[in-house]
Amino acid sequence: MKLVRYGAKGAETPGLIDADGKLRDLSAQVPDIVGDVLTPQGLARLKALDPKSLPLVPGNPRLGAPVGRIGKFLCIGANYRDHIAESTNPIPIPSEPILFNKFDTSVGGPNDPIMIPKGSQKTDWEAELAIVIGRPARLVSKETALDYVAGYTICNDVSEREWQHKRNGQWQKGKANDGFGPLGPWLVTTDEIKDPQTLPIWLEVNGKRYQNGNTKDMIFDCAFLVSYLSEFFTLMPGDVIATGTPAGVGGGVKPNPVFLKPGDVVVLGIDGLGKQRQEFVAFKA
Amino acid sequence: MKLVRYGAKGAETPGLIDADGKLRDLSAQVPDIVGDVLTPQGLARLKALDPKSLPLVPGNPRLGAPVGRIGKFLCIGANYRDHIAESTNPIPIPSEPILFNKFDTSVGGPNDPIMIPKGSQKTDWEAELAIVIGRPARLVSKETALDYVAGYTICNDVSEREWQHKRNGQWQKGKANDGFGPLGPWLVTTDEIKDPQTLPIWLEVNGKRYQNGNTKDMIFDCAFLVSYLSEFFTLMPGDVIATGTPAGVGGGVKPNPVFLKPGDVVVLGIDGLGKQRQEFVAFKA
Repeated sequence: MKLVRYGAKGAETPGLIDADGKLRDLSAQVPDIVGDVLTPQGLARLKALDPKSLPLVPGNPRLGAPVGRIGKFLCIGANYRDHIAESTNPIPIPSEPILFNKFDTSVGGPNDPIMIPKGSQKTDWEAELAIVIGRPARLVSKETALDYVAGYTICNDVSEREWQHKRNGQWQKGKANDGFGPLGPWLVTTDEIKDPQTLPIWLEVNGKRYQNGNTKDMIFDCAFLVSYLSEFFTLMPGDVIATGTPAGVGGGVKPNPVFLKPGDVVVLGIDGLGKQRQEFVAFKA
Repeated sequence: MKLVRYGAKGAETPGLIDADGKLRDLSAQVPDIVGDVLTPQGLARLKALDPKSLPLVPGNPRLGAPVGRIGKFLCIGANYRDHIAESTNPIPIPSEPILFNKFDTSVGGPNDPIMIPKGSQKTDWEAELAIVIGRPARLVSKETALDYVAGYTICNDVSEREWQHKRNGQWQKGKANDGFGPLGPWLVTTDEIKDPQTLPIWLEVNGKRYQNGNTKDMIFDCAFLVSYLSEFFTLMPGDVIATGTPAGVGGGVKPNPVFLKPGDVVVLGIDGLGKQRQEFVAFKA
């Protein structure tokens, strides 16, 4: 099942994409794609519906992030070996996952324009597989961890490199800026993703391919991450975990790093999860 | 005005404390103490009510955090000179604020018991003044920053020192554990707090006073923090900023640090903002 949220930012309507790729309205079934809707029971109810019985949505509305009211927007740093190797701030292979996070105001639709923050010189991209949690998970084992996942989506973990590394510790200042976490286009439920560790993942800027990875190259896989994070806090339905990016970010380009400027268009995708397209725009107060 | 939320966790009812210290029910006026209720317009509506016209709440119900649906639970590290001096992980006076954060599942009521996480050996306390945002704040000046504040409350920034510093970068692993962010008892609106930089702040463990500070000793004051953070992301009504702790945390006790064990009782307070009391309890699955 491919769940979506469509319409104006902050007022999205729940929907799904049917077998023909058509957008259908779910608003008579659920208030939003949030919390309880993402539990096994909630998803089973939606799966039992005949998509063809749902109203077709006319036109081509904006897509929002496919999950609403995200409690925690967790991100894993340095989780692909090839990305670590290209880093300009050399770090060893992590002994355990590096955690940071984005905020509510970081969330964006998959194709929303992204404003380069005031004064930013080093806005960069990171294509990532994102996990969406479907059941409260606390101290769950690696073996059962994927049972707590509702589905997967794409995240561009947009990053301001100077602010991430040079603004006095902790990464949020360069990771959690407004709009720096586009999600979508779809929340694809786990029944459609047999193995989250075999997915090609790619990203292009102005048509040039920079990232061309595969989720098999993660240092800590999805099951491990869910289990590991659940040691520290309870993961709740609708929580999102962006799982790190493969090699090919702008900051890693040799000899001269490449950063985003107004007018640049970033397109990224993961097999089975669709693709995103963002135009980066100049700062405006 | 002293706003509160009372009742069972996750199902709190809005209320206020009247001039006689009595709890009055606000549920006929607002659905919860969240978002729009905290804007100048929302607060003006509540201030126009005669508290004595509101139903008295019988008994002595549990208090929840005085603000619901917190979008961002931001925290500032190393913001008192005396706390930096006592730190066992020496750091210089920050050149700009150190930011970290807690999560939705960290939020607790002011008097809720707090479970020591599984395997934790170094659970510690930190009494802090917390700012609650009342208007969307983006790139606001220091001069106008306090106009974006709805009020203040207390936060115990409970911290697992080993996990904060020794679990591979970023502090959330030892700061954002379940229940590690009790807030309250009240959200005190700004009209009752003439100057947030003159408030005595204290904390006792089992009746022994460990922290005895004053918000005048902050390195970065409340106005600066709101302005500074609004450079990176839009602060929204209901967002919380815990502003750092003065000297006297358990990890700083010489020659041997003191950490919390089951049965310990922590009481903390700030003049004008009331006090909190938490019993720390053993881990239970």
